Amino acid sequence: MIQEQKDKTAIGQQQYPLLSGIKSPADLKKLSVAQLPFLCDEIREYLISCLSVNPGHFGSSMGAVDIIVALHYVFDTPRDRIVFDVGHQAYSHKLLTGRYQAFLTQRKKNGISGFPFPFESEYDSFVCGHAGNSISAALGMAIADMNTPGEEDRKTVALIGDASIGNGLAFEGLNNASQNPNNLLIILNDNEMSIDDNVGALHRYLSEMSTSAGYNRLRFKLYGLFRKWGLIEDKGKGLVLRFNNALKSLVARQQNIFEGLNIRYFGPFNGNDVTKIVKILQDIKEMKGPRILHLHTRKGKGYAAAENNPAPWHAPGKFDPDTARRQSEAVSTDGVPLWQDVFGDTLVELAGKNESIVGITAAMPTGTSMNKMACYPHRMFDVGISEGHAITFAGGLAAAGKRPFVAVYSSFLQRGFDNIIHDVAIQGLPVTFCIDRAGIVGEDGVTHHGIFDMSYLRIIPGLKVAAPMDCETLRNIMSSSLEWSGPLAIRYPRGKADSARWKTPFAKVEPGKSRLLHESSDSRIAVLSVGPIGFEVSKVLEHLQTEGLSADHYDMIWVKPLDEDALRLISEKYAGIVTVEDGCVDGGFGSAVDQWFERNRKSVRIINLGIPDRWIYQGTVAELRAECGFDSKGIHDAVAALYNELSNADNQKNQHSPAL
Amino acid sequence: MIQEQKDKTAIGQQQYPLLSGIKSPADLKKLSVAQLPFLCDEIREYLISCLSVNPGHFGSSMGAVDIIVALHYVFDTPRDRIVFDVGHQAYSHKLLTGRYQAFLTQRKKNGISGFPFPFESEYDSFVCGHAGNSISAALGMAIADMNTPGEEDRKTVALIGDASIGNGLAFEGLNNASQNPNNLLIILNDNEMSIDDNVGALHRYLSEMSTSAGYNRLRFKLYGLFRKWGLIEDKGKGLVLRFNNALKSLVARQQNIFEGLNIRYFGPFNGNDVTKIVKILQDIKEMKGPRILHLHTRKGKGYAAAENNPAPWHAPGKFDPDTARRQSEAVSTDGVPLWQDVFGDTLVELAGKNESIVGITAAMPTGTSMNKMACYPHRMFDVGISEGHAITFAGGLAAAGKRPFVAVYSSFLQRGFDNIIHDVAIQGLPVTFCIDRAGIVGEDGVTHHGIFDMSYLRIIPGLKVAAPMDCETLRNIMSSSLEWSGPLAIRYPRGKADSARWKTPFAKVEPGKSRLLHESSDSRIAVLSVGPIGFEVSKVLEHLQTEGLSADHYDMIWVKPLDEDALRLISEKYAGIVTVEDGCVDGGFGSAVDQWFERNRKSVRIINLGIPDRWIYQGTVAELRAECGFDSKGIHDAVAALYNELSNADNQKNQHSPAL
Repeated sequence: MIQEQKDKTAIGQQQYPLLSGIKSPADLKKLSVAQLPFLCDEIREYLISCLSVNPGHFGSSMGAVDIIVALHYVFDTPRDRIVFDVGHQAYSHKLLTGRYQAFLTQRKKNGISGFPFPFESEYDSFVCGHAGNSISAALGMAIADMNTPGEEDRKTVALIGDASIGNGLAFEGLNNASQNPNNLLIILNDNEMSIDDNVGALHRYLSEMSTSAGYNRLRFKLYGLFRKWGLIEDKGKGLVLRFNNALKSLVARQQNIFEGLNIRYFGPFNGNDVTKIVKILQDIKEMKGPRILHLHTRKGKGYAAAENNPAPWHAPGKFDPDTARRQSEAVSTDGVPLWQDVFGDTLVELAGKNESIVGITAAMPTGTSMNKMACYPHRMFDVGISEGHAITFAGGLAAAGKRPFVAVYSSFLQRGFDNIIHDVAIQGLPVTFCIDRAGIVGEDGVTHHGIFDMSYLRIIPGLKVAAPMDCETLRNIMSSSLEWSGPLAIRYPRGKADSARWKTPFAKVEPGKSRLLHESSDSRIAVLSVGPIGFEVSKVLEHLQTEGLSADHYDMIWVKPLDEDALRLISEKYAGIVTVEDGCVDGGFGSAVDQWFERNRKSVRIINLGIPDRWIYQGTVAELRAECGFDSKGIHDAVAALYNELSNADNQKNQHSPAL
Repeated sequence: MIQEQKDKTAIGQQQYPLLSGIKSPADLKKLSVAQLPFLCDEIREYLISCLSVNPGHFGSSMGAVDIIVALHYVFDTPRDRIVFDVGHQAYSHKLLTGRYQAFLTQRKKNGISGFPFPFESEYDSFVCGHAGNSISAALGMAIADMNTPGEEDRKTVALIGDASIGNGLAFEGLNNASQNPNNLLIILNDNEMSIDDNVGALHRYLSEMSTSAGYNRLRFKLYGLFRKWGLIEDKGKGLVLRFNNALKSLVARQQNIFEGLNIRYFGPFNGNDVTKIVKILQDIKEMKGPRILHLHTRKGKGYAAAENNPAPWHAPGKFDPDTARRQSEAVSTDGVPLWQDVFGDTLVELAGKNESIVGITAAMPTGTSMNKMACYPHRMFDVGISEGHAITFAGGLAAAGKRPFVAVYSSFLQRGFDNIIHDVAIQGLPVTFCIDRAGIVGEDGVTHHGIFDMSYLRIIPGLKVAAPMDCETLRNIMSSSLEWSGPLAIRYPRGKADSARWKTPFAKVEPGKSRLLHESSDSRIAVLSVGPIGFEVSKVLEHLQTEGLSADHYDMIWVKPLDEDALRLISEKYAGIVTVEDGCVDGGFGSAVDQWFERNRKSVRIINLGIPDRWIYQGTVAELRAECGFDSKGIHDAVAALYNELSNADNQKNQHSPAL
């Protein structure tokens, strides 16, 4: 069985007669259109084999195979550019552009990224990861080409999903798409889902569009005919627009949202029919002006289990391709919960006692466990991929007396930075931001690490910022916060929390109150940590004792307000401090400690550990922490080095003293 | 003349027979509908009188008088809530809600804010300033009320302009407006302008809507009839929707964007006809479900000069009400340019030599002087109030070989924080952010200060961040940057630059290279400044010399990369350092200096001057700098205090030495 799987992940002539011959899109173009469905089948089989052992984004990638094959078949990539959106769906793009040998390294350290990434391939025209950027980026390229002599004939295609297109950034792109001359083609890959079920009125609107499919298809056919007869030359925009308007009057007085935004609309068509898509793309490829092609695809297409139950198969983890049994389905036996579940269960528990509590998330109900709040259907709001709106909406709820908890991943919360400042913090509204996936997230890589949050949140006046070390503290902060005024941010990582014994009675905690975890009488060094990295610190300090070195450990919990009482004591007691955080060192927790010591005229030697000032790519969390120097070894070495430094300084002082 | 003006700004029975009787909306409700047009006239006259001597946002406020009078007349404020958007238009709201006596203090220190502000009045339901937040915030309130026993009948109205509604946040709000039961009323105040001419396809779409006005009016009339006849009871949503759908089939098959988003649309109607608006509002007030009322207004309505030339009359400064002569029209005689013009002229100069340069702004072409680039019409892009799109679009242009310069105000750039990280910096694209209105902006107050930029930008890997002291350096950074790779941010303030002699030949500058401006052999203190606040530092240091105190002055220019060579020299030469910045102290330039000293094991006493960790409201720039302690006096006192501290330490050391 395992043997067989291994074979299937190796691209051989026998197993994959078509795919094995494709080193680049040039080879793809040698196939006949009739061969393309077979190629799509091979790609799907290969994806199933690979992703069952090296997990990734399964459902979207399976659904988009036909579109991507058709795009590379019809367009002249990389000269013509495909701009993906989010990039969950782009695996077959990687396979067709010379990366199938590297495919089993995807999402691994020093391997290929799980998303399209320009530094990796000339076929990856723009960065992916955060939803809704494709239209704006592709529009920039399309307009740039239009204004660059010799480049006017280059084509740019934005491939965006139906969840992403509801994002505000995508709307801003659509709203600007017809402002300047360009030939941008937007392909709407409509699988009626984001990671979870899709929401938003636009989504409903799109799904109702099939009712007008007849009109749209007629229009498309007429367009083809007119073109064949030479009635449309596509030279000037005016003619086409006139054609469109005339046709509109002729066929029906119906108008759609995209046409309202001055973007020509085609569709909906079946996006899992590769030969049909090829034909459509050939037909509209040379058209001028911005246009949108609406294609329906099925998430997980070609793998029954995923087609029937797409949500868990978005990123299913490892699975058995034959039985479709997912490894993650195996019940955890140690009872240690995920951080997100501690949040979700605690929120539900609190909501049962406090009717003003409401929960909001932005297309991440499963990922943040906000879905648990669905037991109070009128008090849980999934607003879709609209992080900015999620926060301002929470501000409105709070202004009307509610206690909103907004659960968003750290890297996506960056989208709501201004909303936190302007729509929440300036008014001191009691909105709690529960920031999941904080710190290094591992395999999702550079676009998904949640490393900036402590730095950009601690500068906002009146916002409390906590990074609890253990899940019991997360619970206690959540419950205690109901008695506090003003906004609060709590950040915690992806993955498992620390203990199965977490559902303890709520205890009161105070903002800006740290705790001393480890103390010995002779310690000259204090390690100040925030967040679960504190568990690494504890282990390191135990180990250091075996080396005869002692250091004390403060779980600071709060990035803001800092525990100034503790810092004053620390400044008197220790000669050296090591700060540790799973976040960027610049401007973060350590920086706040540095600045506190400067401001309070306390001279202590401080070392800041955390994420350095460069981009961190994918890998396991452990690998990346090691790379950044704040894994156990990094913390150990920093403390040991500081001991040496302080001892040397003492020795020098002692040597110099007699001379005085 | 002056006497007469003074009289007109005082609300007296004789001058303002109706307005003078209105202490709160309760008094307004005592008037008959027939009296309302006269009240609107009085309000306009009063606004003209006041704003001519105490400048503010004139055009929008004049245009929105009728809508605001009608809203307070029909709705039961403050229980019913009006959520303004941006708030440029809200002056008459302030006048009607008990603030006409305070009106001449607006935008002044300790006076009332230029925008609605919840801490100021219970009638100001949400913060205003950054465009597009009203729908999300009002939706939060409307849904909160729906779910709060006893509050279900409260009404919430969002009043949003046609420029703001094109913002991505507003779209996210619209897209979510029908997700949960609510009775939100959105009023689209369509004056066909933002500060400058409005852009975007949605705008064109709105202006074409008058073509369908006949259908919409018929629909509205029928609705009224059906309601009268008891055919619609508005109890359940289903009935109304069925009515709408039936009517759609009956009258025409036309659909509009808002209806596509499941929001009932009414309009367009004349928004400067107060009696008509009252009637419409009374008709639709009790309707259930989200709905949008589209009203056309005229910017500057009631003042001919402003109606005819709305752009300069958006915020005209002081003017003579009789002749409509604006004080700002007076030509500056000293030849010292505005910072924004140095930017704009330099960009045009560089663009003439380098064809790849393009300019982008987000609805601020006049305010940033990006309008100067309009001499290259295909290379200047005003994308409307779409800061996020502006940046991602620039990323796309850069990916296709262009050199984009994005000019945005500092506080609005917060909207694009994630776009800078994700769509520009991760890819190292050469986009230059020209950040206008950086630092304390003065009268626009808390929502408009550009105080966070250095803190949130310096944490982004690979992004260079400069704050030039003089406009010649701004020019030289802009020109030199064309030879650099990667993204760059340059921040400079509102208002006048330093010198009439700025258009000097371009000189090469290096990133991360500071300059020593003032040095004496006996200085024990160095002042490190970034930005034009350096001129204050220079003055202070000259003055300190007269007191026998000497300190050296480094214009650091670069927040990132820091000039590490200079810092090493500084760490050896001085016993004390004062950092000065027109930005928040936490995480900013001073914080970066603190952290550098910690990281490099240099022990020097450092004081950070800048904006403290609390909200700063409106006032003159000078007043607010003084409040924050980094005006001349603040800098002087900090340096003098540090001298004392160092001297005392020396004395103590000298006293202790003999005892050793």
